[in-house]
Amino acid sequence: MIIVMRQDASRDAAEDVARRVEALGLKPHLIFGEERTVVAVVGDDRRKDREKFESCAGVDKVLPILAEYKIASRETKPEPTVIRVQDLVIGDGHFGVIAGPCSVESEEQIMASARAVKAAGARGLRGGAFKPRTSPYSFQGMKEDGLKLLAAAREETGLAVVTEVMTPHHVDLVASYSDIMQIGARNMQNYHLLQAVGECDRPVMLKRGASATMDEFLLAAEYILDQGNQQVILCERGIRTFESHTRFTLPLASVPYLKSKTHLPIVIDPSHGTGHANLVPPMCSASVAVQADGIIVEVHPDPPNAMSDGAQSLTFSAFEETMQQCGKILDALGMTLN
Amino acid sequence: MIIVMRQDASRDAAEDVARRVEALGLKPHLIFGEERTVVAVVGDDRRKDREKFESCAGVDKVLPILAEYKIASRETKPEPTVIRVQDLVIGDGHFGVIAGPCSVESEEQIMASARAVKAAGARGLRGGAFKPRTSPYSFQGMKEDGLKLLAAAREETGLAVVTEVMTPHHVDLVASYSDIMQIGARNMQNYHLLQAVGECDRPVMLKRGASATMDEFLLAAEYILDQGNQQVILCERGIRTFESHTRFTLPLASVPYLKSKTHLPIVIDPSHGTGHANLVPPMCSASVAVQADGIIVEVHPDPPNAMSDGAQSLTFSAFEETMQQCGKILDALGMTLN
Amino acid sequence: MIIVMRQDASRDAAEDVARRVEALGLKPHLIFGEERTVVAVVGDDRRKDREKFESCAGVDKVLPILAEYKIASRETKPEPTVIRVQDLVIGDGHFGVIAGPCSVESEEQIMASARAVKAAGARGLRGGAFKPRTSPYSFQGMKEDGLKLLAAAREETGLAVVTEVMTPHHVDLVASYSDIMQIGARNMQNYHLLQAVGECDRPVMLKRGASATMDEFLLAAEYILDQGNQQVILCERGIRTFESHTRFTLPLASVPYLKSKTHLPIVIDPSHGTGHANLVPPMCSASVAVQADGIIVEVHPDPPNAMSDGAQSLTFSAFEETMQQCGKILDALGMTLN
Amino acid sequence: MIIVMRQDASRDAAEDVARRVEALGLKPHLIFGEERTVVAVVGDDRRKDREKFESCAGVDKVLPILAEYKIASRETKPEPTVIRVQDLVIGDGHFGVIAGPCSVESEEQIMASARAVKAAGARGLRGGAFKPRTSPYSFQGMKEDGLKLLAAAREETGLAVVTEVMTPHHVDLVASYSDIMQIGARNMQNYHLLQAVGECDRPVMLKRGASATMDEFLLAAEYILDQGNQQVILCERGIRTFESHTRFTLPLASVPYLKSKTHLPIVIDPSHGTGHANLVPPMCSASVAVQADGIIVEVHPDPPNAMSDGAQSLTFSAFEETMQQCGKILDALGMTLN
Repeated sequence: MIIVMRQDASRDAAEDVARRVEALGLKPHLIFGEERTVVAVVGDDRRKDREKFESCAGVDKVLPILAEYKIASRETKPEPTVIRVQDLVIGDGHFGVIAGPCSVESEEQIMASARAVKAAGARGLRGGAFKPRTSPYSFQGMKEDGLKLLAAAREETGLAVVTEVMTPHHVDLVASYSDIMQIGARNMQNYHLLQAVGECDRPVMLKRGASATMDEFLLAAEYILDQGNQQVILCERGIRTFESHTRFTLPLASVPYLKSKTHLPIVIDPSHGTGHANLVPPMCSASVAVQADGIIVEVHPDPPNAMSDGAQSLTFSAFEETMQQCGKILDALGMTLN
Repeated sequence: MIIVMRQDASRDAAEDVARRVEALGLKPHLIFGEERTVVAVVGDDRRKDREKFESCAGVDKVLPILAEYKIASRETKPEPTVIRVQDLVIGDGHFGVIAGPCSVESEEQIMASARAVKAAGARGLRGGAFKPRTSPYSFQGMKEDGLKLLAAAREETGLAVVTEVMTPHHVDLVASYSDIMQIGARNMQNYHLLQAVGECDRPVMLKRGASATMDEFLLAAEYILDQGNQQVILCERGIRTFESHTRFTLPLASVPYLKSKTHLPIVIDPSHGTGHANLVPPMCSASVAVQADGIIVEVHPDPPNAMSDGAQSLTFSAFEETMQQCGKILDALGMTLN
Repeated sequence: MIIVMRQDASRDAAEDVARRVEALGLKPHLIFGEERTVVAVVGDDRRKDREKFESCAGVDKVLPILAEYKIASRETKPEPTVIRVQDLVIGDGHFGVIAGPCSVESEEQIMASARAVKAAGARGLRGGAFKPRTSPYSFQGMKEDGLKLLAAAREETGLAVVTEVMTPHHVDLVASYSDIMQIGARNMQNYHLLQAVGECDRPVMLKRGASATMDEFLLAAEYILDQGNQQVILCERGIRTFESHTRFTLPLASVPYLKSKTHLPIVIDPSHGTGHANLVPPMCSASVAVQADGIIVEVHPDPPNAMSDGAQSLTFSAFEETMQQCGKILDALGMTLN
Repeated sequence: MIIVMRQDASRDAAEDVARRVEALGLKPHLIFGEERTVVAVVGDDRRKDREKFESCAGVDKVLPILAEYKIASRETKPEPTVIRVQDLVIGDGHFGVIAGPCSVESEEQIMASARAVKAAGARGLRGGAFKPRTSPYSFQGMKEDGLKLLAAAREETGLAVVTEVMTPHHVDLVASYSDIMQIGARNMQNYHLLQAVGECDRPVMLKRGASATMDEFLLAAEYILDQGNQQVILCERGIRTFESHTRFTLPLASVPYLKSKTHLPIVIDPSHGTGHANLVPPMCSASVAVQADGIIVEVHPDPPNAMSDGAQSLTFSAFEETMQQCGKILDALGMTLN
């Protein structure tokens, strides 16, 4: 880290800071500039509370140099992590497609969806059984009955099941029925939950929180990795900004940025990322072109009658067309579908 | 809600929407404008998935009219809710002051803090025992040992203890040592946790999530209220914006807005809301002037050696001066301290 | 518009609002709901100050229905607008590529750039002669000398020249040397400037302001169109959000959204939109895939010595590779380069 | 500045960066850390393009140390700047109050407003004659006729006239009728306009752009100061965030932050900052308490019939009550009204 002194700070103040740096087992370098003195700190300060130097006399600000995440870092593990479950492959040139309804609503609905998304080329099936809903009065999911229906759909189609787990004491239950456990955006910093899935041997799809920075996102992944579970998929699903014509703002530049920083695969969720079905197909194509490692898309047999997220769900035929466009771009770029 | 048809939508499409509205038990009014047809929907559509109408043929957009929260609404309960624990009073002209360290670190630290904040005028003691930290490598709190120290500090000083609960299976434990349970900003939409504290008889301080809208904030409160716990305090602690000179952006206009919409008291957290100790005192004064129902402030005996949030913690003497300024404004406005 | 009354508003208050609506030449429909009364207003209220109804007694809020822009609207002109200058074509399946340095710095620099970007497939040349810079101490551009060099580069290469105009009294000068005049993001709501370029017969590239909503963006275009100039290109260049790993956040979903609302072509600026050269090539590919009408990209012979925007400028070889990737996707999707 | 090398960067790359630093006349210090090499740069790099180092081989990122503004800095001029025009005083303990309608609409309206705001305690009169409006179809102001009415109101009441100037060629005209020229938020980075008012001897009120950082805001002020005009008032009027219950988000922490960085006075605009008349009075009180140097407030004789900004305008009686509350807090804090 770099500790920047105020212009009016005394030499004593800078030396006091340097002593505090040494007391932490780190090495300070004092640099006396024309206008400012800075204390450059050498050593691994990841596990220190860096910002507390701000409250020392004469300190103006503290600039971190080292990212706090380590296991997630590409510097630690240069080769890309690849996730393989059932016939779904995500990462290192494999573009994994996960699709299905927002919520599992009935056997008929989930079976029809599973068949349709498989026929169109998906190899993962999404479907919420435990649903985090903004309002307590909204449909909260079919719970374990929903999980059973997902497992039945996998039985028939061979699709990998991706479903959300909302609280630590559900982890074993959800793990027993699913192939990939999803941590939703609202729970990205639910640390007990992250630790609980970190103790599983099941891959985890971690969604970016709506106001999470990249460092916070990777540190949330680090919580899982640090417990021993190395199978983490990052999912960019949009951030909250002033834009109101979309539900969230979906920043695809996250993909090349994350690829430069981490070995973990990155999947895009254009359904939540835009919130409107007509915007989803072009953003699926763009996700391929930006070289994401996959997409997760909401598809429903009858969107106007969906119990949740109807406005952003594709019909079967719209999803089929979307997959055809994606296929053309995958071919053009030499990438592999699933 | 108002369902706005596209300009090119047929009359049939609008009538189809009207039929779907009726099928939900609501009453549609078709209004044929010069450029657009709108379907105005009469009835309580709070528990319906309103946005799914967007996927009906010919629909442009859906505008909600009724807020989804009901128990939290001032329309439901016009008189203000007041929270009283120990000598701390929050709401209806009582300005409750809660102060103390970010984390409980030791008996000496928490005892000294409790005495100092009480002497300055606080009647609530904050202190984290279970700490949600962005990095898995940061100090995670003293856990139950920290709770015991908080209870000991209450024993001596009579201050009401406010401390965070992070996960449903800790609720009973935390409730047994504390007077007010805090739900942190990262957990504002951790619905299992909200329901768990909703089943307690202990007041809950619910912090606004960094990217939560007012409706989302009040719906999170609604989750708690809907379980039977009516003692909810809202806490504005800042939102994430593009501003980087402060840790978050602290919008004090939340106070009069929330007061117009809900009967629940609103407390401001200027420590997290700004992130820098020098900005905290004037924002405490402003919190009084804007007629918030209280403040929660980080105070530490030795900020440069704090184990967390050192940069935003006030020293004892800075807190004392802050309270003197607040006292002058409280007097001027005819409000009561605690 | 829809005027929503407060729950406690009297019938008289709603009728008073209705009378005010009639006084504006519009037709009110009163709808008495279970909880709220709403006044639905029929007629073209585009030129009225709709929000002032908020200050009438008993009014809770005002919801607009009609967008305020009209000439820019796809409802007014369904067929896409296509811009053709020199060999550059933008719109309706033609993907126009504009490239070049941030600033014109010297004859050698702009000539080398023009030749390189043309060889790689661009048909437009960008280059700033008048430079809006955040700091008064930064390089402010070569001014008219820069314009002359751009014109010389067009003379040799046949590339269409795109350059910024910053203030109304420069419009004639800039128009005399350029093919497309650019309005920068900081000037998106500089209405005198918009009107001045609206009186020209030169195409205008209007960049989205960093905090402009889609409606504000289209209304800024409307200022130009309303003066008679129908040749407007919209340019999405990213918005300001809490993200700091990129200079701005580049929301590609703007493209399908804008295409659904306006006939004007939409070009993406991934250089300003990301701020880092390594993120630009994948975002160029994604711009093709999302079916934008073109890109504008910063390319410099020697980025470490650029006088502005070095960090986000591509080298010649990086730009050439970028164009090859874009070409593959254009082919796959059946689109035409320029 | 601090230039941080990538972990895999060679020693040669760092030394090449050091040579480039020297070539700019600055002094590099290489610090070889355990994981990273950093190049600390000593010297005034304000007028250099710092970010271009990012495009040098092996560089990860560049961290600026010195703010780019200099004349605006409190380090350059520690004593606060005070603005005095007519009976209005802004700064150094004087809380200046400017009030009046959004737009000048008629003689009757502006005269009535001037008398009312003066009676309530204001010493500045606001009123727009040239109006920047989002839509080309909205009322654009009375132009010079409006300026004449403002001057007439000053003649009668002695209030200082504050009015907006939108474009460089209007500066002389607006200066001839007004006491303080306002640069609106949309024009904060209209550099030709900033330079034009910088050449005047008239005080300037510079509004913060809706997405401007503090550094950008102060650099915009620096453009004016750098031309010789030292009488600049900063005005915080809210930033664009995801919040939609207010028109903008008004961050009062700007006041203590700016006071720590600059000697220029800071005024708050709670009318634009919130957009709703019921939120304005408590935010005026909070502006006093946070020790701003003044407020600028929209007041209209008949808000439901205002030609612009009706929703956020106070009635005369609401303004009078607001001033009474502010007066109590000013007294309590020992500050002076105007």
